[in-house]
Amino acid sequence: MRLFYDIIADKRDKKALSKEDISDFLQSYLDGTLKDYQMSAMLMAVFFNSLNSEELETWTEKMLYSGEVLDFSDLDGIVVDKHSTGGVGDKISIPLAPLLAELGFYVPMISGRGLGHTGGTLDKLESIPGFSVNIDKESFKKIVRTNKMSLIGQTPEIAPLDKKLYALRDVTGTIESLPLISSSIMSKKLAEGINGLILDIKIGEGAFMKDLASGTRLAKTMRAIGKRFGRSVDVLFTNMDEPLGYATGNALEIKESLDVMQGKYVPQVTELTIRMAAVLMKTFKMTTSIEEGEEKAEKMLQTGRVLERFAKTIELQGGDPKVAENQSLLPESRFRKKVRAAESGFISKINALDFGKALIRLGGGRLRQEDSVNKAVGFVFAKKVGDPVKAGDLLYTIHYDEEDRLKSAEEHLKDAVSVTEKQAEKTKLILGSL
Amino acid sequence: MRLFYDIIADKRDKKALSKEDISDFLQSYLDGTLKDYQMSAMLMAVFFNSLNSEELETWTEKMLYSGEVLDFSDLDGIVVDKHSTGGVGDKISIPLAPLLAELGFYVPMISGRGLGHTGGTLDKLESIPGFSVNIDKESFKKIVRTNKMSLIGQTPEIAPLDKKLYALRDVTGTIESLPLISSSIMSKKLAEGINGLILDIKIGEGAFMKDLASGTRLAKTMRAIGKRFGRSVDVLFTNMDEPLGYATGNALEIKESLDVMQGKYVPQVTELTIRMAAVLMKTFKMTTSIEEGEEKAEKMLQTGRVLERFAKTIELQGGDPKVAENQSLLPESRFRKKVRAAESGFISKINALDFGKALIRLGGGRLRQEDSVNKAVGFVFAKKVGDPVKAGDLLYTIHYDEEDRLKSAEEHLKDAVSVTEKQAEKTKLILGSL
Repeated sequence: MRLFYDIIADKRDKKALSKEDISDFLQSYLDGTLKDYQMSAMLMAVFFNSLNSEELETWTEKMLYSGEVLDFSDLDGIVVDKHSTGGVGDKISIPLAPLLAELGFYVPMISGRGLGHTGGTLDKLESIPGFSVNIDKESFKKIVRTNKMSLIGQTPEIAPLDKKLYALRDVTGTIESLPLISSSIMSKKLAEGINGLILDIKIGEGAFMKDLASGTRLAKTMRAIGKRFGRSVDVLFTNMDEPLGYATGNALEIKESLDVMQGKYVPQVTELTIRMAAVLMKTFKMTTSIEEGEEKAEKMLQTGRVLERFAKTIELQGGDPKVAENQSLLPESRFRKKVRAAESGFISKINALDFGKALIRLGGGRLRQEDSVNKAVGFVFAKKVGDPVKAGDLLYTIHYDEEDRLKSAEEHLKDAVSVTEKQAEKTKLILGSL
Repeated sequence: MRLFYDIIADKRDKKALSKEDISDFLQSYLDGTLKDYQMSAMLMAVFFNSLNSEELETWTEKMLYSGEVLDFSDLDGIVVDKHSTGGVGDKISIPLAPLLAELGFYVPMISGRGLGHTGGTLDKLESIPGFSVNIDKESFKKIVRTNKMSLIGQTPEIAPLDKKLYALRDVTGTIESLPLISSSIMSKKLAEGINGLILDIKIGEGAFMKDLASGTRLAKTMRAIGKRFGRSVDVLFTNMDEPLGYATGNALEIKESLDVMQGKYVPQVTELTIRMAAVLMKTFKMTTSIEEGEEKAEKMLQTGRVLERFAKTIELQGGDPKVAENQSLLPESRFRKKVRAAESGFISKINALDFGKALIRLGGGRLRQEDSVNKAVGFVFAKKVGDPVKAGDLLYTIHYDEEDRLKSAEEHLKDAVSVTEKQAEKTKLILGSL
């Protein structure tokens, strides 16, 4: 084994690392013989000099096989998952998973928590009374087999090296690295034993990726990793300048998701849910075109079977399935404040970042991993970008529990919504695909 | 105080750090509240994005004042020191310090140990029986006052932050950074309470700097730091393609140094010693030209006073002063092997790096800080680059103690000396100054 110093220095000096170098380095870190301070120097060198495709493959492989890799190959259907790079009001996983299950897929979905201004699927699910995302691996596998889907948080058995590396990146300024982001996501997803993955890469004000070019680089990197491991990776680039749909906040987003599953057409949310399902159907030759898939998916949402599948999932994971039919069983905030338009015109901006930050101030998001989250608070929009508005019209409603938190949130909301005289265009939600 | 993460991310993203950021970051590291893994990420970011002159000043200042700063301002003379970036056979500090003392300077010299293929003044001095370089700070100050010079190793009171940072850089691939090298050297030297410093920047095969351009960048950075703290920094760039002088190895270099102090003209060694003294004399207006200074310095070496000063220093630091007159009191190796020329012509190369590595193999250098060093072994050259040679002439003598170490050393020596038919030029020792 080469000296750790020399391996770090090679990456620093733009020399490609061998398969053996990367294996030794990562294995030693997992064992504890390589120290955090050496790994963080390496991570920063990777931030600057990246990893070539061979290095990235080895790096991802090492993370993937640092823990257990699930095997669903004996199942009578395609196993898929979806990953979003994170946005404001992004609840798509919740209606999508049961929709995919009813369309014939198996969905062993392992999700994350919200951090910073972006929300997390796990926090949203936990607003359902009794719902547990901490399902052990064996129960998870069993639920996927019998129920075709399960929605859980990361288990200790899946990619433990990623867990250790992520914690270090989180305190050393090395989160924002294309190969490190890609290998982190892909190692966890590949460990789920999936055949295909669909990525929702968020672009805009409220996303980590501010432009399509950087989003495309990430997408290509992730897709290349998928290819090396023989899994399909579909990609949608979607707008994150304004919050997705009409609700942000944990329980409020569950309500909106239930609306979608009940067959209501919720602009943006239904649109993106059926598009993602349609892309996966086409990739796995269940349809011949996106349009055909969208039609099938939309019809499926009308049948009530998707909502039933979700209710069944809630039940299997310890929650109250009556929530599916009775949204008032979800937590509600004590107070409401209605924010109205000061002038007439058209909505030209609803800033996702501002509303994401304001949600943290209300208590509905977290700044640090260990913060707790208020499930009830959030925002419900009455207008979306492009809508005409008259002075005095309701713009949005703030759901809150504490006056001082409301005041604090409002600091972020001063310039969050803009109204212009001239006609403003509706947000183009789906910006592209790969 | 800002989040450590944000300070690291700013340096990573090429944003200038404020005085407060750097102070907080370094102070927190010294306190232990900032962890090694965060500092190593910062050091790697500095490796890539460097420090601007304001950042570098703050960084150096923080290291300087992390410990005690000596004060010799009440003395009736100029206080100076010399620093070399390290080479093979570089023993200049040893004759230079007493020469400067006799020329009217005070010399509180804090030196280092050898590491890798470059030797260290402390190891050489310790080949003098009884000589101690571990003198406590108060005794050091007293010796400097009464004896005008003292030669010691780093004390815990001087720049402790540098000590901590250096140990981390040493295992994280962050040694080779211009601002980190400069601030490390300058903080220690400034802490000695000097008025002026002369830098010997080694360029070539056996040096860290392979070309004059990179040496010049380092020199300018160090000089800029000196200027900000009101100290003069003179710079010589000197050749390190062939070993300096005729001897490498600890005791062998002490012998060669004693020859110089006895007034013998040892090519390269005497030349560089008197040049450095002359540069400092001119800087502090003790002479009007380099030539005048060189003449004074050379005459001073003839008087015997320099050797006396060195003998006095040995005595004050616990060693046997009789060494000055009787070189046979120094450790000697058990065996000699004479290496002779295979063909006639001119010496065109004596590779300093090869001889530096071979010295480590003989046991006379160290690969790791904790290795011990054999003081007696080394090489004595009979020829230098440019000398004519006849087949069968002695090229150099290997001083060794163990047969297997000799064998191991000889692996590095196969191509270490080259002979050509056509006249080869003598090495140009002094390549430039600043």
